[in-house]
Amino acid sequence: MKTGNGGSERAAAIVAAAGTGARFGAASGGSPKQFLDLGGEPILIRSIRVVLACRGVELVACPVPADWRAHAEELVAAARLPARVVLLDGGATRQESVARSLEALAGPDEPDLVVIHDAVRPLATAELAQAALDAARQHGAAVVATPSVDTIAVRSGERIEAVLERSTLLNIQTPQAFRYRLICEAHARAAADGVADASDDATLVLRLGHRVAVVPGPATNIKITSSVDLELARLLFAGATS
Amino acid sequence: MKTGNGGSERAAAIVAAAGTGARFGAASGGSPKQFLDLGGEPILIRSIRVVLACRGVELVACPVPADWRAHAEELVAAARLPARVVLLDGGATRQESVARSLEALAGPDEPDLVVIHDAVRPLATAELAQAALDAARQHGAAVVATPSVDTIAVRSGERIEAVLERSTLLNIQTPQAFRYRLICEAHARAAADGVADASDDATLVLRLGHRVAVVPGPATNIKITSSVDLELARLLFAGATS
Repeated sequence: MKTGNGGSERAAAIVAAAGTGARFGAASGGSPKQFLDLGGEPILIRSIRVVLACRGVELVACPVPADWRAHAEELVAAARLPARVVLLDGGATRQESVARSLEALAGPDEPDLVVIHDAVRPLATAELAQAALDAARQHGAAVVATPSVDTIAVRSGERIEAVLERSTLLNIQTPQAFRYRLICEAHARAAADGVADASDDATLVLRLGHRVAVVPGPATNIKITSSVDLELARLLFAGATS
Repeated sequence: MKTGNGGSERAAAIVAAAGTGARFGAASGGSPKQFLDLGGEPILIRSIRVVLACRGVELVACPVPADWRAHAEELVAAARLPARVVLLDGGATRQESVARSLEALAGPDEPDLVVIHDAVRPLATAELAQAALDAARQHGAAVVATPSVDTIAVRSGERIEAVLERSTLLNIQTPQAFRYRLICEAHARAAADGVADASDDATLVLRLGHRVAVVPGPATNIKITSSVDLELARLLFAGATS
């Protein structure tokens, strides 16, 4: 029987890298953002290193666009990472890509905990991923989040329905971490209920009625979805390493 | 009597510049962001130029921190702007600063329409401000907004209460534009109801039960609140002018 103190528990990671950036056009010349360079290394590799630095993480499942799998294999091989990275074809949605990755981690060696991270957030730190894992060990589910600084409204067609009270809002990021069995159950329930396009995994855990803890994250843990974001990430990266 | 076709209506502007950047510390050496340089001109002046380029705008009310008013007067004088800019002391909150500015525009020459813009969004374009004014002429109230790309959740203490459905969310920006009498009524009602710290003006119009139209804005219309934002704005500005 596993103890609750964390020392003996097995952790694995999923780095979700199957996005094609279709929402933002191809300012990057057709290459999804996760394969572009950030300070001398591909964004994907930087994000994998973030989760690999967590205690006990020895296996990373990484869904990528099927067309880019060979390229991703080359990047991973060239990076000489200190753990096994299993690349697999992503699904039609982020949710499906993560579900496939959870399946890839199943079996007699299944992990107790899994940390899930978006490849396009390479500026997350290992400390942040570890904090998410530690919170998941304690609460079952945890997300990194920051207070919202934007004014957020609910739309109804071409008009504003309501402006939300900013002080109650959080911007949910990754890393997110979960007990493996819990996040598997959450994905299975979502699939059974016809939910197919959740923007993150914590949403699916909340659907089970399970609590999700918050780990405060830095505003610098940005998601690179546009060429402007990429410029910003390069600025932040240069600042963090100078 | 005024016609509804827009040709004969008077417009004025408010450029809200009374923030002191207290939320983000003084990485700028104590100077609020709106007084810093962006490509050879103060951010404040660039934002004033955005609204001055709108048809019929001949007067700008501009609340600034009381301690910075003399400095702002110098910047405005040096810029030789093609219209009158009335600088006034800001209030304790953004809402109060805008309310004071609306009062400064009152009188026999009161405008029919007012466009309200945050000084720390200097990358907005005159076309965007004009589109907001045109939409306000038609609908009474309009805001520039972009689809939310973040996953937004409602918090409850240290846990997540719910993740909101992203496809229904907008990030509200400025410019925002209103019929002058409508926005005055909205501010008066808010003050009477003890509402003092709204993060934008459209929120107060919604409280009246009045509709607010949406003008799609670009993601590049960023709000400069941190030193990283400032670096990004300089990159975007260089890109836009090169």
